[in-house]
Amino acid sequence: MAIRSSAPMHNEASNTPSRRDLLSLIGAVAGSAAMYEAMTVLGFASESGYKGRVRLEGDPKGASVLILGAGLAGMTAALELRQAGYKVQLLEFNSRPGGRNWTLRGGDQFTELGGARQTCEFEQGLYINPGPWRIPYHHRGLLDYCKRLNVALEPFIQLNHNALLHGSRAFGGKPQRIREVKTDFQGQVSELLAKVVQQGKLDDAVSKQDKEILLQALRSWGALDKDHAYRANLITAEFRGYAREPGGGLDAAPVPGEPLALSEILKSRMWRYLQNFALHEFQTTMFQPVGGMDMIGKAFAREVGDLIRYDAKVTRIQQNDRGVTVGYVDTKNPGTPLAATADWCVCTIPLSILSQLQIDVGAPMKAAIDAVPYASAVKVGLQFKRRFWEEDDAIYGGISYTDLPIRQIAYPNTGYNTKGRGVLLGAYLFEGANAYEFTSLAPAERVARAVEFGAQLHPQYKTEYENGISVAWHRVPFTLGCAGNWSEAARAQHYDNLCRIDGRIVLAGEHASWIPAWQEGAILSALDAISRLHRRVVNT
Amino acid sequence: MAIRSSAPMHNEASNTPSRRDLLSLIGAVAGSAAMYEAMTVLGFASESGYKGRVRLEGDPKGASVLILGAGLAGMTAALELRQAGYKVQLLEFNSRPGGRNWTLRGGDQFTELGGARQTCEFEQGLYINPGPWRIPYHHRGLLDYCKRLNVALEPFIQLNHNALLHGSRAFGGKPQRIREVKTDFQGQVSELLAKVVQQGKLDDAVSKQDKEILLQALRSWGALDKDHAYRANLITAEFRGYAREPGGGLDAAPVPGEPLALSEILKSRMWRYLQNFALHEFQTTMFQPVGGMDMIGKAFAREVGDLIRYDAKVTRIQQNDRGVTVGYVDTKNPGTPLAATADWCVCTIPLSILSQLQIDVGAPMKAAIDAVPYASAVKVGLQFKRRFWEEDDAIYGGISYTDLPIRQIAYPNTGYNTKGRGVLLGAYLFEGANAYEFTSLAPAERVARAVEFGAQLHPQYKTEYENGISVAWHRVPFTLGCAGNWSEAARAQHYDNLCRIDGRIVLAGEHASWIPAWQEGAILSALDAISRLHRRVVNT
Repeated sequence: MAIRSSAPMHNEASNTPSRRDLLSLIGAVAGSAAMYEAMTVLGFASESGYKGRVRLEGDPKGASVLILGAGLAGMTAALELRQAGYKVQLLEFNSRPGGRNWTLRGGDQFTELGGARQTCEFEQGLYINPGPWRIPYHHRGLLDYCKRLNVALEPFIQLNHNALLHGSRAFGGKPQRIREVKTDFQGQVSELLAKVVQQGKLDDAVSKQDKEILLQALRSWGALDKDHAYRANLITAEFRGYAREPGGGLDAAPVPGEPLALSEILKSRMWRYLQNFALHEFQTTMFQPVGGMDMIGKAFAREVGDLIRYDAKVTRIQQNDRGVTVGYVDTKNPGTPLAATADWCVCTIPLSILSQLQIDVGAPMKAAIDAVPYASAVKVGLQFKRRFWEEDDAIYGGISYTDLPIRQIAYPNTGYNTKGRGVLLGAYLFEGANAYEFTSLAPAERVARAVEFGAQLHPQYKTEYENGISVAWHRVPFTLGCAGNWSEAARAQHYDNLCRIDGRIVLAGEHASWIPAWQEGAILSALDAISRLHRRVVNT
Repeated sequence: MAIRSSAPMHNEASNTPSRRDLLSLIGAVAGSAAMYEAMTVLGFASESGYKGRVRLEGDPKGASVLILGAGLAGMTAALELRQAGYKVQLLEFNSRPGGRNWTLRGGDQFTELGGARQTCEFEQGLYINPGPWRIPYHHRGLLDYCKRLNVALEPFIQLNHNALLHGSRAFGGKPQRIREVKTDFQGQVSELLAKVVQQGKLDDAVSKQDKEILLQALRSWGALDKDHAYRANLITAEFRGYAREPGGGLDAAPVPGEPLALSEILKSRMWRYLQNFALHEFQTTMFQPVGGMDMIGKAFAREVGDLIRYDAKVTRIQQNDRGVTVGYVDTKNPGTPLAATADWCVCTIPLSILSQLQIDVGAPMKAAIDAVPYASAVKVGLQFKRRFWEEDDAIYGGISYTDLPIRQIAYPNTGYNTKGRGVLLGAYLFEGANAYEFTSLAPAERVARAVEFGAQLHPQYKTEYENGISVAWHRVPFTLGCAGNWSEAARAQHYDNLCRIDGRIVLAGEHASWIPAWQEGAILSALDAISRLHRRVVNT
């Protein structure tokens, strides 16, 4: 519907009219502050998937749990289950904790599927996060664990107004500043709407009273002049930026630039990026751990590291009425088959791997395990001699987008304005043909292409580039893909079967959540899985 | 104009058609990357008021300069002039460097005009910046000095999508999340425009080809469904947020909330804040120094502190053909009149003070000094037992706006997600009747009102508040106001006269810039003033 005459009195989606009615009553009787206070008390604000610190009440009576995978899901489960009184052991394929929670620094080595081995040559203190790299403020579970485990956070800049939008066939291939595209689009759209409002063409949809305010709002929102026009002037420059910024002393008056024509913006398709920036998942304030995303994995490992057996490659998952037996090999010494047993199993192995293992579960869970393809993603980190994006281009953090195969260039959100070297995320391909094509290339070739393409946005690449490293997630041995890529149809058919406890086995991980590819999904899925498992244990 | 058929080939504002034509030629001959490279080389990007590190070439032959005021303008001048070979001395009213570049921490004392003395009771590590508190990325001069002087920076969050907009008579007094107001306004405006585009009512303004793309763009930008409607659904929830966020495991599907009606948003006038957030001055990525804004003043003082005489209250500024004599008193020992002399004088004393001093300058400069009223501003810092805005409300940094006299509540942009106490900026009034009214109150009363009003946005104030401090800039003895408040008419008549060298005296400070109230204005004005002064010195 277009314009509603008043806000609806009940929330159709969450079915809580009585609560809202109650609040209205409080508001009428005791005033707005009292009403808001009551709202807060009643939890009227948006409800998180995280219900606060998990309470596993009741005695597990010495029950044991074997957890497969020491990523965030597995370590969350381990931390909480041990605290609740379980005997816990963890098997982890890698030689480090964290799984996809992973940071590459100078000296780190990584061998991908196919055998190509890379050594990261970054200067000390520089890094990339090949996996997750940002934390939304509404990922309450992850943030609570960061607080409990003393992981220091700093802002992750998603939208930097001075970063670039680049279309290889738009604006003669010249990158545009996000602030200009955004302001010029918004302004000219506002101008169009103001025109039809003034012409009375919306009188059926907008009341006379609203019409006047709408015109004021469009003028404000669109940076329109008194004639409701969007033009090159100091009004628009206050939002889109100046051709010449204001200065100090004499001869320092600002000069506005010429807006981009709406027609050109439309043809460029750069408007797609504007809304990408507006996603709830990417809204301010986002975070990253100070020093690299793996600070979280390391913080968990400080708590549960003693429970982890590293270099353990699971080969077989069996269960019967009395317990679970997991066969595995030590990857450093693979000749001898090993086995671990427990009363229960929390399996966080990615479905891309799990679907290739023998696992004793019923047909519904097995079908679910096999139903989820894994997303393709490639990241390339590039080290440069200097932070030219800051020094030359005034881009501090954030992301530039392009229609070139590299898709984006992300600037470091730390060490701002410092001298010396810096590392860019020189490519981040997520799904699409280019991600598969990049995956098929040798690591050095991926890096070379990232440098070649990136130079179209930043010519300084040619003189400043030093070294690079790439991770193509379909070639990462411990996941064979970036994250579970649920279709709506697959979710409708299989998701609940994936999450339900099957005998003595329950699955967890981002793939067992409604927040796929995010660390929060891994944590919330683990908390839900162990809560249900615990209820089963204490009730049997 | 509405929609242009193509981007203009020359930039009317900066009068550089030939440069652009040249670039087009390069693009046609050598491709887009070459063109962009040439653009970068030719400096096609927006031009800063900062021209890079100042070069004062030529020998001043032992000339001396007396600088009045050790704020950023005065210390910038001191640093560069000494380096260029001048004999420099600085007189400063306060007992510390920085001027309005100022941070209040636990134990700091401050006596305002009228004698009221406050002691800051904040816990160690907590602070407010009573004066400047944020640095735009395009303030290139200030950022360059921060780099040279090793001032560590961290992001200042201006727009936090989860912060609040509050109208005491809107939405029953209930604060709204910025993300909801922003998304719902943008979505419903897009819906309106899509409707008239589909009805053919814009066929005169939009070409047939553009029309199709415009509809796609509005659908993307406005989060519209396939019927181009903005509704409560998972499309809009991806941008405005959810009534129930997605979770992990079973029973974890997301639930959308009900949009705010456009009519209600219009009446609430909250759209004014949306555009405030979009200002170039407030665009990402903004900064603050780690540890408090006065880290900048202290960094300058590490360089030029040996030149500063503190507690020096200027009483008289005289000049003749041979030099400048400035009378002053030591505020700690005011009985004895003192004098300082030099060949030249850079005066950065705020016009609010300077207009009350006897100064030997010609009528044009004197008229300019007297022509600029000073803006009124009040800030209130409040300490709370815990960071409830993060813990309860998921607001990390950024600013909530209200139509209450406190105008805004700003959350700390540092120490995110930590346990323990926190300090809010509980009020920031800038101009308007409320700023004057707050100034007239005793400090404790300002704090009490900030607590009372703020509780309408955050009921937790009532139980969590501990202590507060306030600074009303019209009562600050060293400025008697926040910043020069130029009218367009005054600037047209007086600005150049204020900035021109008068005999042996030149003025500097934010008041002598086109960036009033910003530290960048102080620095750029100082650089321009000393550059002109230096040319005069080496040419005479």
